[in-house]
Amino acid sequence: MVQLNDRVIEGVISVPLKVIEDDRGAVLHMLRADSQHFNGFGEVYFSQVNPGAVKGWKRHRLMTQRFAVPMGRIKIVIHDDREGSPTRGRTEEHILGRPDAYRLLIIPPMLWYGFQGLGKAPSVMTNCSDIPHDPGESDQMSLETETIPYAW
Amino acid sequence: MVQLNDRVIEGVISVPLKVIEDDRGAVLHMLRADSQHFNGFGEVYFSQVNPGAVKGWKRHRLMTQRFAVPMGRIKIVIHDDREGSPTRGRTEEHILGRPDAYRLLIIPPMLWYGFQGLGKAPSVMTNCSDIPHDPGESDQMSLETETIPYAW
Repeated sequence: MVQLNDRVIEGVISVPLKVIEDDRGAVLHMLRADSQHFNGFGEVYFSQVNPGAVKGWKRHRLMTQRFAVPMGRIKIVIHDDREGSPTRGRTEEHILGRPDAYRLLIIPPMLWYGFQGLGKAPSVMTNCSDIPHDPGESDQMSLETETIPYAW
Repeated sequence: MVQLNDRVIEGVISVPLKVIEDDRGAVLHMLRADSQHFNGFGEVYFSQVNPGAVKGWKRHRLMTQRFAVPMGRIKIVIHDDREGSPTRGRTEEHILGRPDAYRLLIIPPMLWYGFQGLGKAPSVMTNCSDIPHDPGESDQMSLETETIPYAW
């Protein structure tokens, strides 16, 4: 599991997000237009992930994913098969969830990724992407592929 | 409770959002840059609301709130004391939550609002606002005020 930026796949960014604790329920930052990690707004949407369920593999050709998990806990696996990438061939696990891993995970285009719900209740993945969803710019691959060396 | 647009406070918009059902967990739309309801991106953040807890009253002078509740169930109360508003004096309840009320609720500036967590588990309010959070552009009032005729 990657907690720091020192060995992540080239272009992937994982940074801690601010949580403002409150007895009524915490306020959780995600992304501001004046953030260094902001490069345009395309869409914000949610993907519920039931316990144990896996969504993937998926690759976007144009869209940058900006993920945060405000509720629950999700494992994200990223695989780099980009020609010429200094981290080509690397496969990495990231965890997103409170309280210890409330983070913004940025996945640039052309990386394969999938994610799995952890814990006993459904989790909420939020994606604030830089372009709106367009089914024409993404690819999918079966979880059973032998191309990606990862066993869910 | 308001389910349609025919009697909401002037400027408030409540529209159903698309849910794409999936055994692994549904995909939940919220807001796209090419939506008719989009008027700029400022920030996306979350406010957890514990069962029974109330956050409010609050009023933004500049920021438009664009709310959706991907997990749990929240009651939002809006009060209009805007001078010259055709709905001045009106106080309205809205419910946001799945499966029957997965909606986008847009609250323009200068309206008072507060919200309460319903159900038995924490809920997640998401706000995709048109400007980033700035404490200098909002006002607060105690829940015990007599100015707003609403008993939480």
